[in-house]
Amino acid sequence: MFKKILIANRGEIAVRIIRAARELGIVTVAVYSEADKESLHTLLADEAVCIGPAKSTDSYLDMNAILSAAIVTGAEAIHPGFGFLSENSKFATMCEEMRIKFIGPSASVMDKMGDKINARSEMLKAKVPVIPGSDGEVFTAQEALKIAQDIGYPVMLKASAGGGGKGIRKVDKKEDLTAAFESASQEALSAFGNGAMYLEKVIYPARHIEVQILGDSFGNIIHLGERDCSLQRNNQKVLEESPSVAIGKTLRGKMGDAAVRAAKAVAYENAGTIEFLLDEASGQFYFMEMNTRVQVEHPVTEFVTGVDIVKEQIKIAAGQELTYQQKDIVISGHAIECRINAENPKFNFAPSPGKVEDLFLPSGGVGLRVDSAMYNNYTIPPYYDSMIAKIIVHGENRFDALMKMQRALYEFEVNGVVTNAEFQLDLISNPNVIAGDYDTSFLMETFLPAYANDKE
Amino acid sequence: MFKKILIANRGEIAVRIIRAARELGIVTVAVYSEADKESLHTLLADEAVCIGPAKSTDSYLDMNAILSAAIVTGAEAIHPGFGFLSENSKFATMCEEMRIKFIGPSASVMDKMGDKINARSEMLKAKVPVIPGSDGEVFTAQEALKIAQDIGYPVMLKASAGGGGKGIRKVDKKEDLTAAFESASQEALSAFGNGAMYLEKVIYPARHIEVQILGDSFGNIIHLGERDCSLQRNNQKVLEESPSVAIGKTLRGKMGDAAVRAAKAVAYENAGTIEFLLDEASGQFYFMEMNTRVQVEHPVTEFVTGVDIVKEQIKIAAGQELTYQQKDIVISGHAIECRINAENPKFNFAPSPGKVEDLFLPSGGVGLRVDSAMYNNYTIPPYYDSMIAKIIVHGENRFDALMKMQRALYEFEVNGVVTNAEFQLDLISNPNVIAGDYDTSFLMETFLPAYANDKE
Repeated sequence: MFKKILIANRGEIAVRIIRAARELGIVTVAVYSEADKESLHTLLADEAVCIGPAKSTDSYLDMNAILSAAIVTGAEAIHPGFGFLSENSKFATMCEEMRIKFIGPSASVMDKMGDKINARSEMLKAKVPVIPGSDGEVFTAQEALKIAQDIGYPVMLKASAGGGGKGIRKVDKKEDLTAAFESASQEALSAFGNGAMYLEKVIYPARHIEVQILGDSFGNIIHLGERDCSLQRNNQKVLEESPSVAIGKTLRGKMGDAAVRAAKAVAYENAGTIEFLLDEASGQFYFMEMNTRVQVEHPVTEFVTGVDIVKEQIKIAAGQELTYQQKDIVISGHAIECRINAENPKFNFAPSPGKVEDLFLPSGGVGLRVDSAMYNNYTIPPYYDSMIAKIIVHGENRFDALMKMQRALYEFEVNGVVTNAEFQLDLISNPNVIAGDYDTSFLMETFLPAYANDKE
Repeated sequence: MFKKILIANRGEIAVRIIRAARELGIVTVAVYSEADKESLHTLLADEAVCIGPAKSTDSYLDMNAILSAAIVTGAEAIHPGFGFLSENSKFATMCEEMRIKFIGPSASVMDKMGDKINARSEMLKAKVPVIPGSDGEVFTAQEALKIAQDIGYPVMLKASAGGGGKGIRKVDKKEDLTAAFESASQEALSAFGNGAMYLEKVIYPARHIEVQILGDSFGNIIHLGERDCSLQRNNQKVLEESPSVAIGKTLRGKMGDAAVRAAKAVAYENAGTIEFLLDEASGQFYFMEMNTRVQVEHPVTEFVTGVDIVKEQIKIAAGQELTYQQKDIVISGHAIECRINAENPKFNFAPSPGKVEDLFLPSGGVGLRVDSAMYNNYTIPPYYDSMIAKIIVHGENRFDALMKMQRALYEFEVNGVVTNAEFQLDLISNPNVIAGDYDTSFLMETFLPAYANDKE
């Protein structure tokens, strides 16, 4: 096992990793920007190295600074958390070259799954259902029209080299396709220097269902069941739960098998997530993408399976065999996570950094966990993601879990910054959410409009 | 189910009960003394009633004031927590008379098990092993000598009407018995107006092993495994764990069966604990006493079984059948609890009330729970028990649990008051404790003397 690891991240996930490492008897090294000198991860780690100014590109994304910190402190491995460098294959390669273990999959696997068209063709080979669409790049509107005719409207046009929402168009009918293709392709060309596109059928209504997988260096790959992450605002998950009410035992088995097949196809090592879209009515599901890192919402899976995913990541990276076999994984009870963001839901969710005062984090009782980067009198810097805590509950069943979440959100208190805790309380009090009756459009198209009116 | 209950307690256990009730959808009423106006239980409950001055006898022990508060607020039931009125059969009777449900066993069962000689004879009838001793009261030294001869020295002489350490003598050899008997009996006579004594063999070395039981009003009684509470200072438990390293599957079954037999003998209803002394070498165990209430250390059992004992108490009191059968109870992993007291271990554990500042309670990760009555800027009043929090961890195995506890204690921070957190950290770092090799005398006779020297 490693003696010392460096955590190349900040906020609650850095704190989470420091705690896991410490419980494994590993010395921890935090890296921090000048704005994070007093942040919890900096204070909690055994050692801490300043890696640059507040701006992420000058610190948490500065690969050389982070690698230097690892070398100077003698860290044997780097845990990237999520975001920042966690899916950056160049960084993983640099770690490999420096003989520092990157706690995650290999750079080549990250590349394979990071390229969407490539990931899609890998999945097709592995007989994992993918969203009907073009098999590879499409260069002309003519070609696009033909494919759209086959798969049916509406379709989504996406830039092959895309990212950041650029070069994307939803096309509802044949008549609109040519114009949309030309404009999206043009946009992609000027943004990425590459006008190639691909097409996908729009799956709607759909649930966002993702399957957690773990793979070790011995070729063992298991799945830990699914998470339902359909409650999203602007494609950001807001509340996640496991299991999904939309999934029975048979479908769980099928999706789990597909996820394991997907991971095996690329000889996946470490923790990863296969994201699917589920057409609830037909039970048909489609591969969306793979996240080659730990997810924000991993604790709901930890609650229902008892597996410590972050510890497994570290053990796997250290060359240990998986602690569990598939038959050991039993989904027990129901878990829900609410993300707590320093943002103002009544002001279009504007970020609300500032000084945390009179903080009271819910605690105690059975089946409650709070992963937080806050402490009393801590000042949340304005430079980073607004997520400052996660409240996670585990109940005997879904109703019990909802009651626990209600209790926890009710207890939560903070002054000095505005959070979405009350918004989350309203969300879990919504009849659709209570019934588990929601899809990926629910929060934006049904809940928020009513919420906005309600709050006026 | 009840719509509203009153919690006749304070501190972390009152907070624990409020949380459980709220998760069941029950409205909560706190009672508080003038010193507890700003205490967490007062602030967290839906309603709060002041029941008198700081002194317990004028508030938390004032049965009329508490019953009045229940009547005024329309509470249907009262949860007594532990301590205070929790084992007071007169209070239970008064509740019954007022048609307010006392969340605990009936007054008659409390009386039966509260009288030690009576409890002993009940246990003998139920074929539960008891500590060899006199079958009932002993009135003369002559009689005592005869019984001591039979059971063997050393023996413990105890006043039949005893309490508070009065009228108790340990006798190591025959020659000392008569004098000890006379003086103890005399002391008992003047303290309680009753000079009757009873004798028990001294079980030494021994472990304090207790078995948690739950019984409902339909006659179903189950046990939830054991807790090892051998680490004690002045007969106060300091650290508790489940399961006990001294107990294998067979012995666990035997002790569990004995505990269920004991509870069945008195038709026990609600949560209770059968305390045993275990002679580890022989595997022989002896009934010590029954606690007819929830225990401080109940969370370790909740962690290894998944059962929410406080919720079960409320459900049972509301007339519901037990949620679990014996076959549903599986002991999983290992749990440890450290009691956090506002006291100064370097100053003979003198209480250290005062204002809580810069509080940081450990949180996050897998298998950590903190039941606390503290919040930032809360002033711990000097009038009550010094226990202000409990840190409980759940690991895959005992070593994992110890690592988690170490992590949690390391994170814990508070200014303004002194706590025993560092003492607990030293305790769990002791080789005997790490090995699980300790008995009821270990903390006082081995650990503390070395600790005192070490700290000088």
